[in-house]
Amino acid sequence: MRMLVVDAVNNAKAGHPGMPLGMAEVGFTLYRKVMKYNPGNPGWFNRDRFVLSAGHGCLLQYICLHLAGFESVQMEDLKRLCKFGARTPGHPENSETAGIEVTTGPLGQGVANAVGLALAERHLAARFNKPGHDIVNHRTFCIMGDGCAMEGISNESASLAGHWKLDKLTVIYDDNHNTIDGDTELAFSEDVAGRYRALGWQTILVEDIHEHPGKFVKALDEAFAETEKPTLIQVKSSIGFPSKKQGTSKAHHGTFDEEDVEGIKAALSWEGREPFYVVPTVYEEFKKKAKEAECIEEEWNIELAKYEQEFPNEANEFKQLLGNIISEGWEKVLPTWSQSDPVDATRSYSEKCLNALSTVIPGLIGGSADLASSNKAYLKDYDDFQHKTPWGRNVRYGIREHAMAAISNGLSLHSSGLIPFAATFLAFSDYMKHAMRLSALSRAGVIYICTHDSIGLGEDGPTHQPVEQLVGLRAIPNLVVLRPADGNETSGAYKVAVRRRDSGPTVIALSRQKVQAHVAGTSADKVEKGGYIVSDNSSSGSDPELIIIGTGSELCLCEGAAEKLRNDGLKVRVVSLVSWELFDEQPLEYKDEILPRSVKKRLSVEAGSPVGWREYVGFHGRVLAVNSFGKSGAYLDVFKKFGFTVDNVESEARKLLTDQV
Amino acid sequence: MRMLVVDAVNNAKAGHPGMPLGMAEVGFTLYRKVMKYNPGNPGWFNRDRFVLSAGHGCLLQYICLHLAGFESVQMEDLKRLCKFGARTPGHPENSETAGIEVTTGPLGQGVANAVGLALAERHLAARFNKPGHDIVNHRTFCIMGDGCAMEGISNESASLAGHWKLDKLTVIYDDNHNTIDGDTELAFSEDVAGRYRALGWQTILVEDIHEHPGKFVKALDEAFAETEKPTLIQVKSSIGFPSKKQGTSKAHHGTFDEEDVEGIKAALSWEGREPFYVVPTVYEEFKKKAKEAECIEEEWNIELAKYEQEFPNEANEFKQLLGNIISEGWEKVLPTWSQSDPVDATRSYSEKCLNALSTVIPGLIGGSADLASSNKAYLKDYDDFQHKTPWGRNVRYGIREHAMAAISNGLSLHSSGLIPFAATFLAFSDYMKHAMRLSALSRAGVIYICTHDSIGLGEDGPTHQPVEQLVGLRAIPNLVVLRPADGNETSGAYKVAVRRRDSGPTVIALSRQKVQAHVAGTSADKVEKGGYIVSDNSSSGSDPELIIIGTGSELCLCEGAAEKLRNDGLKVRVVSLVSWELFDEQPLEYKDEILPRSVKKRLSVEAGSPVGWREYVGFHGRVLAVNSFGKSGAYLDVFKKFGFTVDNVESEARKLLTDQV
Repeated sequence: MRMLVVDAVNNAKAGHPGMPLGMAEVGFTLYRKVMKYNPGNPGWFNRDRFVLSAGHGCLLQYICLHLAGFESVQMEDLKRLCKFGARTPGHPENSETAGIEVTTGPLGQGVANAVGLALAERHLAARFNKPGHDIVNHRTFCIMGDGCAMEGISNESASLAGHWKLDKLTVIYDDNHNTIDGDTELAFSEDVAGRYRALGWQTILVEDIHEHPGKFVKALDEAFAETEKPTLIQVKSSIGFPSKKQGTSKAHHGTFDEEDVEGIKAALSWEGREPFYVVPTVYEEFKKKAKEAECIEEEWNIELAKYEQEFPNEANEFKQLLGNIISEGWEKVLPTWSQSDPVDATRSYSEKCLNALSTVIPGLIGGSADLASSNKAYLKDYDDFQHKTPWGRNVRYGIREHAMAAISNGLSLHSSGLIPFAATFLAFSDYMKHAMRLSALSRAGVIYICTHDSIGLGEDGPTHQPVEQLVGLRAIPNLVVLRPADGNETSGAYKVAVRRRDSGPTVIALSRQKVQAHVAGTSADKVEKGGYIVSDNSSSGSDPELIIIGTGSELCLCEGAAEKLRNDGLKVRVVSLVSWELFDEQPLEYKDEILPRSVKKRLSVEAGSPVGWREYVGFHGRVLAVNSFGKSGAYLDVFKKFGFTVDNVESEARKLLTDQV
Repeated sequence: MRMLVVDAVNNAKAGHPGMPLGMAEVGFTLYRKVMKYNPGNPGWFNRDRFVLSAGHGCLLQYICLHLAGFESVQMEDLKRLCKFGARTPGHPENSETAGIEVTTGPLGQGVANAVGLALAERHLAARFNKPGHDIVNHRTFCIMGDGCAMEGISNESASLAGHWKLDKLTVIYDDNHNTIDGDTELAFSEDVAGRYRALGWQTILVEDIHEHPGKFVKALDEAFAETEKPTLIQVKSSIGFPSKKQGTSKAHHGTFDEEDVEGIKAALSWEGREPFYVVPTVYEEFKKKAKEAECIEEEWNIELAKYEQEFPNEANEFKQLLGNIISEGWEKVLPTWSQSDPVDATRSYSEKCLNALSTVIPGLIGGSADLASSNKAYLKDYDDFQHKTPWGRNVRYGIREHAMAAISNGLSLHSSGLIPFAATFLAFSDYMKHAMRLSALSRAGVIYICTHDSIGLGEDGPTHQPVEQLVGLRAIPNLVVLRPADGNETSGAYKVAVRRRDSGPTVIALSRQKVQAHVAGTSADKVEKGGYIVSDNSSSGSDPELIIIGTGSELCLCEGAAEKLRNDGLKVRVVSLVSWELFDEQPLEYKDEILPRSVKKRLSVEAGSPVGWREYVGFHGRVLAVNSFGKSGAYLDVFKKFGFTVDNVESEARKLLTDQV
């Protein structure tokens, strides 16, 4: 394995060999001796999950996958490390390489993902296992480096894992005392194991992994014996072992000179062998394991068949989950609202949608970062997920947004039909932004419920009032942001989010404050188009004089202003642009129909940053937006001062009429 | 104090009384008995710093400031809590209320800010104090709640504080066992004090604060006696004490009914008193303290005068720092580059600028999140800031981006002329985004050095390649993003950043890869305009046929393409749009001069998200951008596949000519 690391890095002239060299014994032990997986069927449900949180060490995993017989990593792939289009990119990506569970590289994320995977297992086991039928039963392993250990997200996640007593989670801490900038003594002198004990973990020290790899096996046995706590195995490894750079930060990344290669070969008794040579017995050994794996999967299938006979209903639900199938007609449970219903905040409409969906989507599970009551993101008919109630579908994340999002990625990428939702204030989406980005990159179908979505939240002031968050999220590739205007659009937003569960994440931005009306022309079904006409008094076939484009809680202001303008005989169209991304995806003809090029007088109204709106209002349009931070104050005062009133929308629209085009 | 909390919240019909009620003894002890400050001169340099990390408890601080005699919080202000335009907004904002050091509310941030303030003190003390002359000598206090304790950022910061042995930092943990969603047992069962001990802190438990407030005073004495470690004082308080909601999450926010008000009054022996009543002796007591404070400041001034006589050079530098004055002509040290100089990555130009500035700006201090060598953000002539070398100006943050940014906010808001820089990869600006937002909101002049600023970073792949980060940052109010194209623009970017040190933060986005040329028409001086003409072959007074707008490492591609188009006789202008925000601030005439409305054929070229570019290219322009995540591969391969070549820029520009307008 170590020579493959050296050869691959030298061949690629890129990559991070230090960690794979230092952790070769760990990788080998896990893949050869300990973990349960089937290389012939990487997606087999009951496999153990492995996460390389120190993602720069991807070569370790690629080599393990290759030796283990995964089709996804052939010798050719190892030779194409870091090349454009290779299945062996510079950091592990689940959508590029079968056998990679989650996308890692940004440090600390993998630890949280692993907690999510372990949470999924615990939850499903509690829901589906029956005495004598452990159909859900696997472990989760994670390798984290010093970088992961320093990042706050790993502490957040580890605190939760300890709280939940996720005993089947084993994190192996590559304690190699080096980071890119040098020895960890530069910035990292804490007692990591002591910290994990304070977080409720068992910790085990393995001091001489290179001399006595058996001690690591023994440590794993201890981990497996512990039934109340997750385990941290602190492995004192030598980064870059046995290169001449070993034990120093120079080994972290970069190639090896000829002298070093010779030295490594000598240390490994590998003299005279060609690059990329693998001893045939190694392949054979792993082939044996693969054969065994087939049997294990087959046994599991038999077990499942028995289970099915004994518990047909549970088995049916379980198989639906695994197949990511939702019973037909699920959308019908989503509530509809009529003009005469009392108005509410869109977060309250969301609460109704979420709770309605929970009854028809057994995979819906999630929670909030200690704002369940404010986000209204709580499944009322279900328990909390806790150590003693692991079947619960409400996850209490505490005030840990970043961990929440990355754990949700783990829940989604467990690929067992769970649809995680994660809720906080939109302003605090910043705290979890990178994990949201990774949802998008790794196609994790997380539903992000972001309430208190504008300066309209009022008294809490600018620290809590989002301004630039909407556009920041809209710019993330493969993330769809929806900002529904009322109840029906909120139902439509959930429809989109659930349908996207295999493709990527969705953000639903919701108001704290009551919206001022149900808008007559909104439609749950049209939400999927991203933008559509809410009202228009121009004659059919002819263009309106102006278009007012709104989203969310401001759409009813647009309607109000349009009514006033129409009373003056003007031809005005109101468009709900509930999702930029979905609208952008529509065919040109559709977009031209909604926003005809010929209509240059366009006004956008959204209580957020102006950035990006020019795309829709054009060169000659106007953008009513928030150009600064918000202000503490009563909602209506704040909205008024920033220009979000019917009167001011009307006034801005009238200015359009006199603007030169 | 407690009745003021009740009255203010009931009067405002908003706010968070639970924490101020539970921590009244702590606030009173700190402001009345322990802390050194001068209400008559809130900005006095040598004051103790206080940070309310649990910012929702702002009433506690407002009431303390009021009683202490700060002009900024009059009784009227307490009555205007959370009203639009009040000096008492819903969370503490340093720019709204004198006496508030930093803006808090987003949880965990304040702990990091406090670490930054304590770091500033330690650093300045090491640089300026002389035997017998402790002119820099103050403590830093911070109150954190359960939310702060859960957030990863506080763990990152506490780990650093322990590493640096910041013994003059005291964090008071309001261990009230409640968060918004309920009892902390829902999600927080770790041993917080044990964790802090593992991070290298002294921890002290105060169990019965309401019965024996003196125990808190004793704990502070222990904290002050400790000279090797920061101290965590774990105060078991009862949230909402002595309301009937006390000890429950219901006390966290919301008003009190009449019965409860009467009960609280009875418990506090306050029956029959008017709302907002303050016992006159309380004001008198605090007035005495204010008098003493004046004397203490006066003594410090005398001490400073003595210091000045004995150490005139040091005193001069010290006073310049405190006045935030930089010696005239400092800009002249910034390097200039000519066409014949070897080309390099803009991160390397940045390294030269930063090191040049370090010689003339004594307040320049900062570091990287373990990427000093990659970010090239290291002051070569200066030591590391460490426990044994606290005069060092290179801060080793470890892999803790979020803490780095928020500590930098503390360094800046120490208001002692320190100009912090903070460096990481642009993709990982996500990890610190909320702290960057708070830099902008609180006007902290942090210089963010964000290297590896596009898919051009190559092999590390999409997890490390920023796409949407630029626009996300550009949308933050009061944050200026610059993406220089070559050495001279990099010098210009630093000029802007240093000049903004009192107004807010700056991001300088820099390439990993070598840029392909020094662009002939770039200018360090014009950078401050945000956008300017780099080259144009149209006759003076007449419009070019098309405009190509580029930034950063893509500007030279624009130049290359323009040359080819000009060889065909076309009139082409190239514009460097190095900063959207600065360009947007220019007068309309200037903007029209650079991007004349009449020229509709415009192409933007930037290896980032397309979002927002329409503002500059208009309805009929073209946007050459990155519409998906990046890809692992050699830089030139990646750039080519995504269309960032001279040939493709030329081809896109030619399409403009045939596009219908």
